[in-house]
Amino acid sequence: MRIVWLNGEWVPADEARISVFDRGLLFGQSVYEVTPVVGGRITNWPYHAARLANSLATANIADDTDWPTVLVELIKRNEMDEGRAYLQVTAGSAGDRDFLRPESRPTPNRIASVQPVALIDNPKAETGLRIVLRPDMRWRLRAAKTTQLLYAVILKEEAKLAGVDDAWMVEDGVITEATSQNAHIIDARGVLVSHPVDHGVLPGITRISVMTIAREIGLAVEERPFTPGELFESREAFVSAAGSLVLPVVEVEGRLIGDGMPGKVTRAIRQSYIARLRA
Amino acid sequence: MRIVWLNGEWVPADEARISVFDRGLLFGQSVYEVTPVVGGRITNWPYHAARLANSLATANIADDTDWPTVLVELIKRNEMDEGRAYLQVTAGSAGDRDFLRPESRPTPNRIASVQPVALIDNPKAETGLRIVLRPDMRWRLRAAKTTQLLYAVILKEEAKLAGVDDAWMVEDGVITEATSQNAHIIDARGVLVSHPVDHGVLPGITRISVMTIAREIGLAVEERPFTPGELFESREAFVSAAGSLVLPVVEVEGRLIGDGMPGKVTRAIRQSYIARLRA
Repeated sequence: MRIVWLNGEWVPADEARISVFDRGLLFGQSVYEVTPVVGGRITNWPYHAARLANSLATANIADDTDWPTVLVELIKRNEMDEGRAYLQVTAGSAGDRDFLRPESRPTPNRIASVQPVALIDNPKAETGLRIVLRPDMRWRLRAAKTTQLLYAVILKEEAKLAGVDDAWMVEDGVITEATSQNAHIIDARGVLVSHPVDHGVLPGITRISVMTIAREIGLAVEERPFTPGELFESREAFVSAAGSLVLPVVEVEGRLIGDGMPGKVTRAIRQSYIARLRA
Repeated sequence: MRIVWLNGEWVPADEARISVFDRGLLFGQSVYEVTPVVGGRITNWPYHAARLANSLATANIADDTDWPTVLVELIKRNEMDEGRAYLQVTAGSAGDRDFLRPESRPTPNRIASVQPVALIDNPKAETGLRIVLRPDMRWRLRAAKTTQLLYAVILKEEAKLAGVDDAWMVEDGVITEATSQNAHIIDARGVLVSHPVDHGVLPGITRISVMTIAREIGLAVEERPFTPGELFESREAFVSAAGSLVLPVVEVEGRLIGDGMPGKVTRAIRQSYIARLRA
């Protein structure tokens, strides 16, 4: 049985429960982080801490949990070598339902859990992802990592029904991001093009490493929105995220990207990122 | 101690808990309804049932709970005469975090609770609401009543800090709705103007009664978006919702609506609606 950390207690996963009046459950007033675990270790914590602080500010939640200590102990107690570590902070429960919290703010509910997943030996790294394009109908404050993820769930379920792996979202004629990953292309000129991190997309932590690696291996990088047309004409396309690391996209709306095989540059970036996680 | 209904059980409110892996908590995959209770009775259930069915379809959740029976018994057990009845249906918990549900879909979590509130003797009916205007940054599927309500929470907290009661939202140059109510005006010509119920606003159940009453008392009604300019020039402005019934708006962005007192037409509609709830 996996062990979950809940408000300072270690609890078997199937006994970890919170109030039905929790504001995360009632109002989506709740934020989260996901970090990859490789060799039993988390990496890039300072970046996650900065993004979490930003999400908490957007959702107006105060939290001073010592997360690295919690996550390290959680990984140890669950004897997890590779997978994802997840943490969530909600605005707590005031024991009643009201959009406005009482003056004495309820104590946040804080949850952490782990999920063993083969991040490195992921078969999709060899076959690549097949995706569709869908309109981006999410709320606008996308720099905050809140649990308002229903649109991503809807698109992922729709993609599965359509027999593909995922969807990329389009807004005002440009690609914003994948349902739960940042989206990138190696365009027809060989330039890595990636949507800038603003309120339109989540500032991915894996994306930071991708940008660093790309520059190290001498790629030209342009942080700007790109169009579906540029995507179709691109040499390679790929996603980056904590849960999938770096994964190639080989087909969009039934049309092959490049020769329909995972791209060489994507592969190099993935390998370099895995080496960093292992280092 | 209030009694909550949770998945078929009657539970004291402070013992009503659900898994931290509930998909409502993790992903906002969760929908709800709120109905006014007057004289210990709910009204308009068929409208709520239809809207709930639509919300469930959007969130891809299957639920066949006999809600009227649950709510009637819940109100009785809590000996509630006046207030709000709340129900929520989530996509359940698969015991792990994955955007995609397993093929054997988890059983939904179903919650119902009541909250005693003075709906009729509401002091705001006499003083009116003071509001501000803010951009509408919510997701686009607003006809579904999901628990992705963080933007409404943010605006209500911001309004409170600004010393006013609430905010109305503006998108593409027109008013969409209030944070948790439909928005209406009696315009400079004396016509009731209300945003049509499409994906841009929630199809309010109280709004249906408002429209019926307005036509009965001989008002001209136009279901079309209206601009902030029309709002400022309007004779009256008001909101409608299960939790507030019909409430006048007397000030917008520091500017008085009409003479700055609750409007006569608003008052007539409110009284007529209360009479219906009591009938």
